[in-house]
Amino acid sequence: MAALKSMEDLFMHTLKDVYYAEKAIYRSLPKMMKQATSRDLKQALEKHREETEVQIERLEKIFEQCDVAARGVRCEAMDGILAEAKDIMEEVEDAEVRDAGMLAAAQNVEHYEISRYGTMIAWAKQLGMPEAVKLLQLTLDEEKNTDRLLSDLAMKTINQAAA
Amino acid sequence: MAALKSMEDLFMHTLKDVYYAEKAIYRSLPKMMKQATSRDLKQALEKHREETEVQIERLEKIFEQCDVAARGVRCEAMDGILAEAKDIMEEVEDAEVRDAGMLAAAQNVEHYEISRYGTMIAWAKQLGMPEAVKLLQLTLDEEKNTDRLLSDLAMKTINQAAA
Repeated sequence: MAALKSMEDLFMHTLKDVYYAEKAIYRSLPKMMKQATSRDLKQALEKHREETEVQIERLEKIFEQCDVAARGVRCEAMDGILAEAKDIMEEVEDAEVRDAGMLAAAQNVEHYEISRYGTMIAWAKQLGMPEAVKLLQLTLDEEKNTDRLLSDLAMKTINQAAA
Repeated sequence: MAALKSMEDLFMHTLKDVYYAEKAIYRSLPKMMKQATSRDLKQALEKHREETEVQIERLEKIFEQCDVAARGVRCEAMDGILAEAKDIMEEVEDAEVRDAGMLAAAQNVEHYEISRYGTMIAWAKQLGMPEAVKLLQLTLDEEKNTDRLLSDLAMKTINQAAA
């Protein structure tokens, strides 16, 4: 990690962190979709993959606005969150219990993103970057919506099937 | 990670994951408090450390209710989140910018906890554990409150000072 001196540096570092995280999520989702037993969970993960693709493009637009080449920096938090998701996929023997565990892991992913996008929006406002704020807000709204959808799905079907 | 067969196994595994995470947070907070420049941020982190101590005790009560010895399992997600917090503390040269980065890192911690406690409450309800639900809900409310406090602090003072 290069030394960070200004708020602009911190914003750019976090943009790179989230860019890495979104790409890692995008690569992980197909395996989760394949492992999911519930059709609703499969669909929710598929929808999130499509959204993630657009979210990555939005981040690339912000890099462009900042005149910086789009490039990720390793996000240890997302690596850890996805490693836990992988453990659940590999170690849970029962298909319905695995669905419940995977859904919870997907919510960990959402919450990391909700935290990061919330922060980046606040910083972009402070730094006078209204175009970036708009793009980041679109993604934050999607992440919150996905988290709500996953909570509903857990409570209506997945957890009952698993218990 | 031992093979998980039932929803009870998954609940217990997640309880151990969060127990490890809370203890890791508890150990990390003094260093963050020491590094913080803003007095308000110091106080918010100190308050959160006091809450974390109680939250750990609540988890121990749930272990007791389940007749299982309180023991953590490595939570790679929290290890990653705290590693990023450490990077920010070490790499940001300007004190005010560092505060903004540390505050954001603390919100990543909160959001991981919000995700995990929300999941555990839903699972404990499904498994018929009303006493555990009550204890977990107390902590979830505290975590959400801390996240809101940190957002307010960021927007009112910390981000302006940093920019």
